[in-house]
Parts: sequence; structure tokens; C-alpha cells
Amino acid sequence: MEEIEKVRLGVIGVGRIGKVHIENLVNRIPAVEVLEVADVDMDEAGRVAGKYRIPSHSTNHRNIMDRSDIDAIVICSSTDSHAQLIEEGAAAGKAVFCEKPIDLSLERIHKTLAVVKDSGVKLQIGFNRRFDANFSKAQEMVATGKIGQPHVLRITSRDPAPPPKDYILSSGGIFLDMTIHDFDMTRFLLRSEVKEVYARGEVLVDPVFKEADDWDTAVITLSFDNGAVGLIDNSRRAVYGYDQRVEVFGSDGMVTVGNETQDSHTYLDAGGDHSALPQYFFLERYMDSYREEMNAFIDSVRNDTDPPVTGHDGLMAVIIGLAAKKSAHENRPVAIEEILSHS
Amino acid sequence: MEEIEKVRLGVIGVGRIGKVHIENLVNRIPAVEVLEVADVDMDEAGRVAGKYRIPSHSTNHRNIMDRSDIDAIVICSSTDSHAQLIEEGAAAGKAVFCEKPIDLSLERIHKTLAVVKDSGVKLQIGFNRRFDANFSKAQEMVATGKIGQPHVLRITSRDPAPPPKDYILSSGGIFLDMTIHDFDMTRFLLRSEVKEVYARGEVLVDPVFKEADDWDTAVITLSFDNGAVGLIDNSRRAVYGYDQRVEVFGSDGMVTVGNETQDSHTYLDAGGDHSALPQYFFLERYMDSYREEMNAFIDSVRNDTDPPVTGHDGLMAVIIGLAAKKSAHENRPVAIEEILSHS
Amino acid sequence: MEEIEKVRLGVIGVGRIGKVHIENLVNRIPAVEVLEVADVDMDEAGRVAGKYRIPSHSTNHRNIMDRSDIDAIVICSSTDSHAQLIEEGAAAGKAVFCEKPIDLSLERIHKTLAVVKDSGVKLQIGFNRRFDANFSKAQEMVATGKIGQPHVLRITSRDPAPPPKDYILSSGGIFLDMTIHDFDMTRFLLRSEVKEVYARGEVLVDPVFKEADDWDTAVITLSFDNGAVGLIDNSRRAVYGYDQRVEVFGSDGMVTVGNETQDSHTYLDAGGDHSALPQYFFLERYMDSYREEMNAFIDSVRNDTDPPVTGHDGLMAVIIGLAAKKSAHENRPVAIEEILSHS
Amino acid sequence: MEEIEKVRLGVIGVGRIGKVHIENLVNRIPAVEVLEVADVDMDEAGRVAGKYRIPSHSTNHRNIMDRSDIDAIVICSSTDSHAQLIEEGAAAGKAVFCEKPIDLSLERIHKTLAVVKDSGVKLQIGFNRRFDANFSKAQEMVATGKIGQPHVLRITSRDPAPPPKDYILSSGGIFLDMTIHDFDMTRFLLRSEVKEVYARGEVLVDPVFKEADDWDTAVITLSFDNGAVGLIDNSRRAVYGYDQRVEVFGSDGMVTVGNETQDSHTYLDAGGDHSALPQYFFLERYMDSYREEMNAFIDSVRNDTDPPVTGHDGLMAVIIGLAAKKSAHENRPVAIEEILSHS
Repeated sequence: MEEIEKVRLGVIGVGRIGKVHIENLVNRIPAVEVLEVADVDMDEAGRVAGKYRIPSHSTNHRNIMDRSDIDAIVICSSTDSHAQLIEEGAAAGKAVFCEKPIDLSLERIHKTLAVVKDSGVKLQIGFNRRFDANFSKAQEMVATGKIGQPHVLRITSRDPAPPPKDYILSSGGIFLDMTIHDFDMTRFLLRSEVKEVYARGEVLVDPVFKEADDWDTAVITLSFDNGAVGLIDNSRRAVYGYDQRVEVFGSDGMVTVGNETQDSHTYLDAGGDHSALPQYFFLERYMDSYREEMNAFIDSVRNDTDPPVTGHDGLMAVIIGLAAKKSAHENRPVAIEEILSHS
Repeated sequence: MEEIEKVRLGVIGVGRIGKVHIENLVNRIPAVEVLEVADVDMDEAGRVAGKYRIPSHSTNHRNIMDRSDIDAIVICSSTDSHAQLIEEGAAAGKAVFCEKPIDLSLERIHKTLAVVKDSGVKLQIGFNRRFDANFSKAQEMVATGKIGQPHVLRITSRDPAPPPKDYILSSGGIFLDMTIHDFDMTRFLLRSEVKEVYARGEVLVDPVFKEADDWDTAVITLSFDNGAVGLIDNSRRAVYGYDQRVEVFGSDGMVTVGNETQDSHTYLDAGGDHSALPQYFFLERYMDSYREEMNAFIDSVRNDTDPPVTGHDGLMAVIIGLAAKKSAHENRPVAIEEILSHS
Repeated sequence: MEEIEKVRLGVIGVGRIGKVHIENLVNRIPAVEVLEVADVDMDEAGRVAGKYRIPSHSTNHRNIMDRSDIDAIVICSSTDSHAQLIEEGAAAGKAVFCEKPIDLSLERIHKTLAVVKDSGVKLQIGFNRRFDANFSKAQEMVATGKIGQPHVLRITSRDPAPPPKDYILSSGGIFLDMTIHDFDMTRFLLRSEVKEVYARGEVLVDPVFKEADDWDTAVITLSFDNGAVGLIDNSRRAVYGYDQRVEVFGSDGMVTVGNETQDSHTYLDAGGDHSALPQYFFLERYMDSYREEMNAFIDSVRNDTDPPVTGHDGLMAVIIGLAAKKSAHENRPVAIEEILSHS
Repeated sequence: MEEIEKVRLGVIGVGRIGKVHIENLVNRIPAVEVLEVADVDMDEAGRVAGKYRIPSHSTNHRNIMDRSDIDAIVICSSTDSHAQLIEEGAAAGKAVFCEKPIDLSLERIHKTLAVVKDSGVKLQIGFNRRFDANFSKAQEMVATGKIGQPHVLRITSRDPAPPPKDYILSSGGIFLDMTIHDFDMTRFLLRSEVKEVYARGEVLVDPVFKEADDWDTAVITLSFDNGAVGLIDNSRRAVYGYDQRVEVFGSDGMVTVGNETQDSHTYLDAGGDHSALPQYFFLERYMDSYREEMNAFIDSVRNDTDPPVTGHDGLMAVIIGLAAKKSAHENRPVAIEEILSHS
């Protein structure tokens, strides 16, 4: 076992996704040392530090920023703090991993990315699905020409149950909270930019979405620079669990990624052929992808290479989301150019 | 074996689809006697009559119309003759089965349906896919509430190869020639009318479609009276064969119909897990559905019941197709109401 | 349509399987004319002749044998008449298709095959499963070396429900009535002869099998001349329908044939992922194979080529069945040689 | 996070499987502290201790036995040391987890189990497959009566490649090294004892197995106390990877567990429908089951409950293996009673 230079980390935010990253960083990624965690909830910060033998914890993220022995930060706090923390991290010369979205305001994202650019630090955005083995395989097959020229992309993305009302109200709406992952997936799979979006939203699952001036069901048509077209459909509630499917059809073939099931059994009785449901939700379905995205971040820090998901990627997904939102509100196709020219 | 009252038939048009119907009528449906066939090609009419032991054949469809011993006619001639032949059949008091579409002009369809209505004869339109066992099963599951309230409908429909240029030029375009089947399928599956259509067409397969002011690739968003939304995608060329899939997602579940494969073998070698392609094209994939739609027509004649696919169904599919065409030309959502008010 | 020379046929036995063959011969195979049917039940013979417009029918199969305008006979009568009818057909110079088994006595089979050989007529035995598209595909893949050297063959063959008691009592037992198809399948797939059999029978489904000194559940181990080994399992009752699966594993890969389902729908609800059961029984599952075996018989008559399933094939399947029966009775492996040397 | 009483462990043997257990114990099971590791290779023991921050390591397992602060031991050394180490652990009052098999000699197993019984310590044997989520699900369905009375059990178990020659020579042969897992699986799934075994071995993969008086391909028939019958087939080399399938067929239904694939993509091109191979080998396929069996062992220590896989289970699998070996050598069915009466 060779001696490795470890990347020393601070983690800001130890909520649900923060814990996922810490678990991976501490137990599954050897080239890492988590030196400190910060969270607005001191007790929770302490519990997590204790469980994972992390030496320091506090409620003040500035401690992390100010430590010269910390190389990189992982931002898992609430969306409205992302831009500020990225900027502080950049100013402190840390490599930054930040959960999506960077911000809900284009203006603010542009400002943050300018700060990052000026500072020269690395920034990786948390589009974890790119690191899922199945979607990676699909991407690789598209990239290596196995399907020829891409013609039609289909994505189905449905949650098992809606989030709480509070979350809905501050989420930025279905297109910026949920479809944003699918928008990033289209760019990842096709390596082509979206030209125009037509989105249609409906409230079919829960009237709370109407209250929030939001939708719980959406279908989106996209056109891409490379000539391809895309269809996405979303629902906030699929009774059978998390539905995450992708398909890219092209001139020479098609690659499809279906759901991963809870187990591989099949049961036949007089009534039919029965098998297991899809994995219940993102923590089950995408657990490995969280580890892989963190591995990729650590690798880019250790080897001084570009992170695989950039600030620009974070920006573009928000732009498409804003176009979709505008399209659904105005019931007309919206060109990406239109959003860009207003930002 | 009880004595059955046979329905006596004349068939007009003995091209590809005409032969399919005659084969089924003569060899697979006992309660039928085909007494005469007509086709513009006298030799072909003769060959078919000989092969199937049909007593009479001619180039003049009026012979069939004028025979008092013929109860019903099956119209398989070219699209531009459909409306005229339906009207003649109605005038002659025959039950009429006619291939889709009734006509490409809404005005003409309205006139034809008025003639049919006044005459009181039965009219069935050839939307054969409704009679496919798989789609019937899906429809039944939706109708009996197995998926709860329908939310999202997805249809993928791709041909293995484009038709010849001549056909393309007179087809009415992808939405009236190809998607028309999918439009009918949405009405069949949801038992709800389309409210609005947004369609996007591309030429990605063959420049000939550009010449024809047509598209070879299309994606369509639909909204329905019952609140559901739908997505359709079409391509004129899938290298792996005929791709015919349907999915209805609702509040309590989802029903999906995948492709039927050429056989059920699976082969594993060091390179992967390989299995058979989908059935090649409609004659392979939908053969049984052609027999079943003809059975249904014969049953409605024998039992004096309403045919399962009506002139109204034929009309509505054309209306949606015209809305889609307008939408793709103008790049905006088009309400069905807008088409109706102009017809 | 070119003029074809039709093969003129007589069919002996118009029970369930006889009707299947007549339906195919009359309606699906152009190069055939069925001139006469015989059955011990005169009314049934008349009904079938009427339905299929067959000119003659009687209770006396000798009529068919004596007609010089009949080229070939199809024997679908009860097992105990097979050998006698084959011999009469051979004496009359007819090409003979006979349902399996030729006889339950090896001695009688040898005598019958000697008569056939001396007469020089063609004899095809009704192992229809060889003509199933799925099993044919598997056989072709084995024959063309896709799996390399065959190592392990697995066959699962289960009926949906046991036959009536009368049938059970005269069936010759599970190995000669049911597994005989699987024994033939092993020879078809591997193109190698069985060397030794170890069979174990149990009565788990219905005590009537015990009364009949028979079994309703069986597992069989086989070894083959080419070094491969095989496993077969049978049951007289699978509540989920007809279970017909085959797998050949070899040095370079594996080919598997799964069940064909009643339709291709999938239904997901909160309780699981549900799909259609296998085809119910042999008439549903193997309908196409009956047509194809008859096509092959007619082709061999028309083109004067060897039939694809010979009297020797019929003999070998019975020999393996007798070995299995002896093995199950004596609970020891039985070499095929041991059966051969006693016959 | 509540304070938990940790189980303090020593691990003997840090080879391939030892490392798997240590990784799980250290990183994935909170209620455990690994205090010491022992291995005949001092350097390797040191490397593993360093990597996992285990305080002590040595070449002398007696250190572990003699420490009063160690509650339990995990034995991952070579098979010939298992019995001795279990006995020493029992004498030292440690709870013992030991990899399969306990020993290749029945006499020695009996002696060891007597020592364990007298000492009153817990002993769990490493049949990890029982803890696989898929097989657990199948077992649960059988146990809860979902398939009714079990009739036929089928297991296919194939390795991707044979072990090295040295391993083969000391492995005890295919039935005690490889099929032993399947024998345990039959007892796990059916909760019924084997009555009789008929096994047939062949050398088809590599002549080295002939040199070792062993086989590389095997098929086994089993009968059980509950009336069911079973079929197992094994191969030392499947070019497509690790093939691990199980099926239990009963009076009311069937449960099947298929392979887990490397990913869930499907690729269709003009040549066919292609998907991913099974997981490559046991470390990929059964990784989670190793964690779960260790969790179960730790739980039984912490809660003072019976371990889920007992010494008796370890004994029975060896007995069935010896019966199979004898059967294959003598080419006759061998009753378990016959082995029992000689031990």
C-alpha cells in the first residue's frame, strides 16, 4: 500500500445530502481527510463529527474557510447560501464542490462564476447522476458513436412522493428543482446545447402545487444544436417508486437505461408474473453515484485536472430551467437565446 | 357445427393491405363470403380472385356497389378515393369498412360522414392497432381504473425505413400518415379528447422529406380534456426495426407495452447479453390485429351493433393531425378548437 | 401466381391435434389438397369435412389407403393405432406423417420402421417443437458454434394441468408421454446421442398418478456422446401455465429460450411490477410450430427430400423414455445401451 | 446518536476474504471494533492493520485468543486450520465466525462441533449467500407459503474461471468447494433436509481437473424430506461471468432469482438487442451479502441470540458434498443416511 497525499476537507452543511457525502468521504475514499464540519445546528454538527471521528466542528463555516490546512470544501447547505459560500471558498483559495443549483438567479450565478474564474480555484457542481454507472454507460455509447447521429432523447423522471410544502415553496419550482437534473442529463448525454424549450405543467398530484404557483406534472420538448430533439416527462408522485429512465435514439441504434429494481426476484402465480419495484428514491438509486462524484472531485484536486462538472454546467441547467418555467407560464416555445439575452 | 348466416363481401383495392384483409376474410373468419374484388389492375384482381377462389373480379368497383347480394364492402384503395367510395357504399346501403384516413380534407370528411349518417349504414375506420392484444390490454387496464387517474401518456412509434418518395409526396405528411395512428391510440387509451397540440418536426433521416415540405422525425406534446398530458415521438427510420411502445402513467400505477420480438431467445457470450430485435414492420407486428379488426367489423354487421371504430374516430384523428401540422409549421401550440372552428 | 403441383392428402383421426393439422393444411399451406378424412366418429368426420370443404369422409381409413389419387397421409389417431397405420400407409406407397410416439413397444417400432424402410416411403414423426422459431434459433446457434462445445443442457417443461385419468392410464407414463418431447429436444439441440439416463419421479400433484403407477413430477439427468450433460425437469401442473424453457451452455457462451407470454404489457403499481403469464398450453404456445412441421412434411414430399424428423428420431425418443422409466423404477442410472440390447 | 456497546474483534487470516470482512467490519458496521489481526504473512498483516487503523497485528493467532478484551473472532485462514481455530476460540470463550467449510473430514467436524457445544460459545458459518437480498427474498416467499408446497428446486452456479491449480488440488473437489454453497442454499430455501443425492461430474473445461481426480462440470439431483426434488448444475468456467440463479417451483407458484447485471443499459442496433453481462464474480455479486452476514454475526453477539447459520448447517453441507462426491465416483444415488452412518 503506497503512501498517498490526502486531500484535507471541510464540509459545510450536514443535512441529508451532507451526511451522504461525509459517509463516502470518510469510509469509502482513502485519499481524503475530513478535518472539520460546520452546520447551523451545533448538536447535529457534533453528532456527525463524533460518528465519523472528525476532529473539529462548529456553527461557523468561516472556521473552515480560514484554515490554511484545508484544501477543499464541500457545500451541502441550503440553496440560498450556495453562491455566497462558493465565493468565500474561492476567495480563500479552496477547491469547491457545491450541490446544485448554484443559485436561482442568473445574475448571481454569473457573478459567482466570475469570482471563481478570477480566483482560479476549481469548482464542481453536484450533478451526481452523471456518475451513475448506467447513465455513464449510455453517455459513453453516444460519445463513441454507437448510436450514430443522435435524433431523439427521452427522459422519464418521477419521484415517489412530493416534498413537504415548505420545501416546495422555496424550491424555485419543478423545472429548477427537479427537471434541472434532467436538463443536465440531456447536455451530458448529447454533448450539445439546448436551443429551445417548450414546457407544459399541470397540477394533478396535489393542489399544494397550485398554491405555490408551481406544477407537479410536466412534459418538456427540447431542441438541440446538433439537430436532435428531446422529450422529458416528470411527476412528483409515482406510486411504484422512483422512476429514472433515459433513452437516446440515433441513426445507427438506441441506448436505453431502465430502472434499477430492489432485487432480482420474479414470482409467477396463477395471477401473473410479478417482480420487484424500482429502488425507492434517490438515496437508494444513486448512492454509488454520490461516491463516484466525490471520487472525481478528489481526483481533480489531487491531480490538478479540471473537474468533470463545471460552473458552466451549473449555469446552463439553470438557464434551461428558467426557459422551461417561462415557456410553461406563457404556453409558447422559448429560445435559450431569449433567456441568455436577459441575463 | 351450426349453420351460420354469412356476411357477403366485396373488397375494393387488392394492394398490400387489401391482400392482408382478403387473406383473413377468406381463411380465418368463418362467417364471411368474399363474392367479388375490384382493382384498377385487372391482372392483380384476377390473381387474387384465383388464389382465394373469389367468384368475381373486375376493374369496376361499381359492380360491387350494384350487387344486391353483397352486404358490406371493404375499401383498401388509395387515400384519395376513400371518401368517394364510402359515399357510394352508403348510397348503396352497404356496411362499409374503410382504411384510414377518410380523407386529408376536413371539409370532405364532414360531407362524407353526413352522407353516412343520412344513409344509416355502418362505417368502421381501419385503426387496426386498437385490436392489438397488447394495446387492448393496456386500454382495458386504464378503463378499469388500474392506473387510477391518467396523468402522462407516452408513445414511441418508429418505422424501420421510410416509404418511397412517391408515397411521401402524396401522404399528407408525417402527422397525417404516421402519427395519425398514435393520435388515434391516445384517444383509444385515454377515452378523452385532445385539447391542444405542440409538434416539432425535423429532417434528420433523409433530405427527401425536406423536398416534400415534410419531416422524418417528430415530437409531439398533447393535452387532454381529462387533464392528462401526452408525449409522442416518431421517426421514419429505426435501424433495429419497428418500434411501437406505449405507456400510460397515472395516480395509482402505470401500464407499459413494449415491443414484440422476433423470437424469445437470449444469447450470452463474453461480449454481452444479446436477444432478438423487434418484429420488423407492421405486417409482422400487427398481423393479428388486422384479423381482429375484421372480425369486429363482421360481428357488428352480423349482430347489427355499432362498429368499434367510427367515422367520428376517423375524423378526430385527422383533426389532431392537422393541428400538429399547423403547430410544427408555426412553432406554437395549436388548440383543437382552432382547427374545428375552421372546418 | 404460378401453378403449383399440389400434394393430395388423407387425414386419419380428427381429434384435437387432427383438427390443428387440418386447419393448417387447408387454410395456411397452399400446396396441399385434403381429399378425405377418416375417424371412428362418423359425425365428427362429417363436421370437419363440411367445415373445411373436404370432399370425402368415412369411418374407414382403408378408403384413404386404397385411393391412388392420394399421395400422403397424416396419422392423428390414438397411439395404439400408429404403428399399424404407418405400416398400411407404407404398403400403400403413401408418404406418412405420424404423431408421436410411433408405439410404446420397441419391438413394434423396429418392425414398423423395417416395413417403412423396405417400402421406401417417407416417414415424418410429429416432434413439432423442433419447428418452433425460438427452439430452431437455439438449435441453429448451437449448430453454428456460437456457444462453442456444449457442456450443460437444461430443459424445463411443465404442463398447466394434468390430463384426464383415462388418458393418464394409457399414456405410457410421464417419460413416454411428456418427457419424450424433451428427449427429442435434447437430440435436436445437441445433435448428439444420449448415453445414460438417471430419472427420479415423484407424485406431488395428484394421487391419481400413484394409482397409475406413474409420476407427476420428474427430474432427469442425461449424459451425451459429445461429453455434455443435461438436466430436465417436468411437472404435470404449473399454476401459472405452460412452462417451456431450454438452455444450452457451452465453452463459448449460452443460448436460452424463455417462455412466450400472453401479451407484452407490464403493470407497475404500489405492490410490484406485474406482467403477463406464459401462453396457457401447447395449442397456444406451439400453434405456429404445427404449421411449420406440416410445411416441412409437404415440402419433403413435393421436393422428394428426406423428412426433417425421421422414424429413427421417433425410435430414439422412445428408447430414452424407456431408459428413464426403468431408471426411475430402479433408482439407478440406466445406459441407453442396456435398452438397445434388450430390444 | 446513542452510545452503543461495541463488539471487540480479532480477525485471523487477512487474505482476499479476510480483507472483505475487515473492510465491512471497520467501515460499514458501527457496533464493532477490530482490535487485532493475525496472519502467517507478517507484512500483509501490518499493511492491513495500517490501512484500517487496527491497533495490533501479529503472525500468532494465539495473541487474539489470549486477549480478554476480545469478544469474538473471525476465521478467514485456510480450510485446514478452521477446525483447530474454532476449537481454540471456543476454549477461549470467544464467539466464532468461521468461513466454510468447517473441515473436509466429518469426524473432525463432529469433534469440533462437540467442543463448541460444550463451551457454549456461538458459532456462525460463512454461507454468505443466505444474506443476499435476492435469495433472502426467495427464501421468504417460500417460507411464507407464496409458492405453496415446494416441488422442484433448480440452482445454476457457474464461476467465470477456474481457480489456480494449487487451489484445485487442496479444495476437496468441486462438490465440497463449489457446490457446497448450493447445497447450503437448498437447505436455506426449502428448510428441509436432503435425503439422497445423485451427482455426475465431467471434465470439459480444463484437463487439470482430471489430474486432480476432480471435475469441472457437474449436475446433481437431490431429493428432500418434504418430497421436493432438486437439480443443480455447476461449471468452473462461464465465459459470460458469474452465473448464479435459483428457482423454486411449487404447487401455487414459482419464485426465480436471476443474475444481477453490471449495469441496466440496453443497446439496440441493426444486429440485435444487447445488454450488460452478469456481475463478474463473487466479490462483485455478493459484496452486500458479506456485509449482511457480518452484521448478523455482530447482532447475535450483541443481543445474545442464536447465529443464523449454525455449525449444524456447516456440517450438513459437507455431508451432502461427501454424498455427491461418492455418488459421482460410483455413479449411483447415495442416501445421506449412508454418509451419516459412516461418520
